[in-house]
Amino acid sequence: MNEPVRWNENGLSILDQTLLPTECRYIRLATASQVWDAIFTLQVRGAPAIGICAAYGVVAGFREKADGQDDLLTIVDEVADYIASSRPTAVNLFWATERLKRAARQADNGDARAIESRLLHEARAIQEEERERCRAIGDYGAALLNDGDSLITHCNTGPLATGAYGTALAAPIRAHELGKRVHVYADETRPLLQGARLTTWELMNAGVPVTLICDNAAAHVLREGRVQLAIVGADRIAANGDTANKIGTYGLALACAAHDTPFYVAAPFSTFDMELADGSRIPIEERAGDEITHGFGRPTAPDGVAVYNPAFDVTPARLIAGIITEKGVLRPPFGERIRELQADYQQSAAS
Amino acid sequence: MNEPVRWNENGLSILDQTLLPTECRYIRLATASQVWDAIFTLQVRGAPAIGICAAYGVVAGFREKADGQDDLLTIVDEVADYIASSRPTAVNLFWATERLKRAARQADNGDARAIESRLLHEARAIQEEERERCRAIGDYGAALLNDGDSLITHCNTGPLATGAYGTALAAPIRAHELGKRVHVYADETRPLLQGARLTTWELMNAGVPVTLICDNAAAHVLREGRVQLAIVGADRIAANGDTANKIGTYGLALACAAHDTPFYVAAPFSTFDMELADGSRIPIEERAGDEITHGFGRPTAPDGVAVYNPAFDVTPARLIAGIITEKGVLRPPFGERIRELQADYQQSAAS
Repeated sequence: MNEPVRWNENGLSILDQTLLPTECRYIRLATASQVWDAIFTLQVRGAPAIGICAAYGVVAGFREKADGQDDLLTIVDEVADYIASSRPTAVNLFWATERLKRAARQADNGDARAIESRLLHEARAIQEEERERCRAIGDYGAALLNDGDSLITHCNTGPLATGAYGTALAAPIRAHELGKRVHVYADETRPLLQGARLTTWELMNAGVPVTLICDNAAAHVLREGRVQLAIVGADRIAANGDTANKIGTYGLALACAAHDTPFYVAAPFSTFDMELADGSRIPIEERAGDEITHGFGRPTAPDGVAVYNPAFDVTPARLIAGIITEKGVLRPPFGERIRELQADYQQSAAS
Repeated sequence: MNEPVRWNENGLSILDQTLLPTECRYIRLATASQVWDAIFTLQVRGAPAIGICAAYGVVAGFREKADGQDDLLTIVDEVADYIASSRPTAVNLFWATERLKRAARQADNGDARAIESRLLHEARAIQEEERERCRAIGDYGAALLNDGDSLITHCNTGPLATGAYGTALAAPIRAHELGKRVHVYADETRPLLQGARLTTWELMNAGVPVTLICDNAAAHVLREGRVQLAIVGADRIAANGDTANKIGTYGLALACAAHDTPFYVAAPFSTFDMELADGSRIPIEERAGDEITHGFGRPTAPDGVAVYNPAFDVTPARLIAGIITEKGVLRPPFGERIRELQADYQQSAAS
């Protein structure tokens, strides 16, 4: 599997995602400023993958700057805070760098090698936890797939964004590893084409048969009986199960409902937002119109045309057959079950 | 209004649609071979517009070749048959050129000016009939729109394809002419982006406010209550009202049904295919995958990815609130009403 972030005897390297799908190239990040640039320029993207890269980035930056210094914990803090400044809203970025700062304090402040070793241990733990979380989602998702099934997905929720199996894509990838024959229809996902550029590439790399379609063709594909279920990711899930995800998800859910095709959401517990009673409270980001009119290097619409470009939509809980989490598949009605498991999750996260 | 085909004192000129939306340029077609090339290279497209261009093309070709010839009707036939060979499946192309051949026989064979005048009269009649047909569709469609309404449409069904108001677009264009404030959400219509490139351009030219969206955003736009109805065109309508149209139409119809938003089809009677009992008999053209993977000049998906690219889908009659024709708005159940009006239509076409 092409993991987006790697650590080996040469240190940290990442798959440059800005070159995909036409080129697959790993680049080495040996300094804090190289790590900062890689996150800032989206060479690494997806909140979990950014967290992993930032964690290893603190190790790389500490290696670079610790030599001959006295106050080694200050070096750790400076490197961590600098890397954390690379993107403004990625929760995993702050969470990972803070965790590395705390970990350094468990080593002897006078011993650079001991601190580096402790930092590396923590970064590896973060990567491993992410892998386990995705694998668990994948196992629960794979159990929903029968040998010979096809599923449809939207946008990109795979290894590139998460550092391991992904969320929605974890299901077919794990099913394939477990010897089931599965096939994926990937929506291209306008305007930014994450499905065409990244999902197809990830599945081809994982050896899972994939067919690319225009978002427009999903309802027709369902009508032809080509798929047995849909699995998508989630950007935020309200306390009642209403799910915000990439624009187009809601239309796909409606088409699935019209064809009695089960529609699943796959997401880790960190995606639930218990502060929001339902999906009507989820703010929908509106993005620049030129993503639509100039998304391919040359204009595809007249100059000056008005554009409406909402980046997400909300799929109501009643259209969702199940939410695949690292703790199992939640079934409707979701509200109570989400509250129970969320309480467990927060308890274990705090401990 | 920018008509796709014009005839004036300089003869025939067409709007070069291959340059849209970045450039609006008319080119003169003075010879039969220029007309043939323009149709072949899609500088003029849309079955009705092709028919009009071919008709005027016969006049232009006759002007070019008649000088000093004896058997003038043979010249007409040769020019007409040559122009008819420019595209293989456009019914209007054959229909228009045959009609010009018949018209020439109503003039004195020995008189080149009389024949040319008769040909020009017939070409103008074809253009005028098309305009009247579209205006009638537009009037019936405009009556469905209230002042302040927004509608959503898919693909391109406007003046460029028809030589006048269009079919689905005729409704907002006529409503606007009649003084109603209307607004259109135009799906960009992947893979070939007819909505982004052509529909927006036509509406901007006609002075009708238009907002471009990704196909993916249609369900969200409906959920937000932004539109009061949908109007789309049709490629073929079966005897029971099931309608084949550009891929994505069916998904839009499902989303409209989920939001109790009336979904209309606008099409002339020539679109009904009484040989087909229902939509399951309509063959769906599958087109090359590179329309999706290379549609913008550079690849948007990995080399060698499998692609499924159906060009049309079928919307079942039960999702259609009405079919807007030149004879009025048909309401469900469609079967009997289609048969009645189709019989009238064929009777008047034969007389």
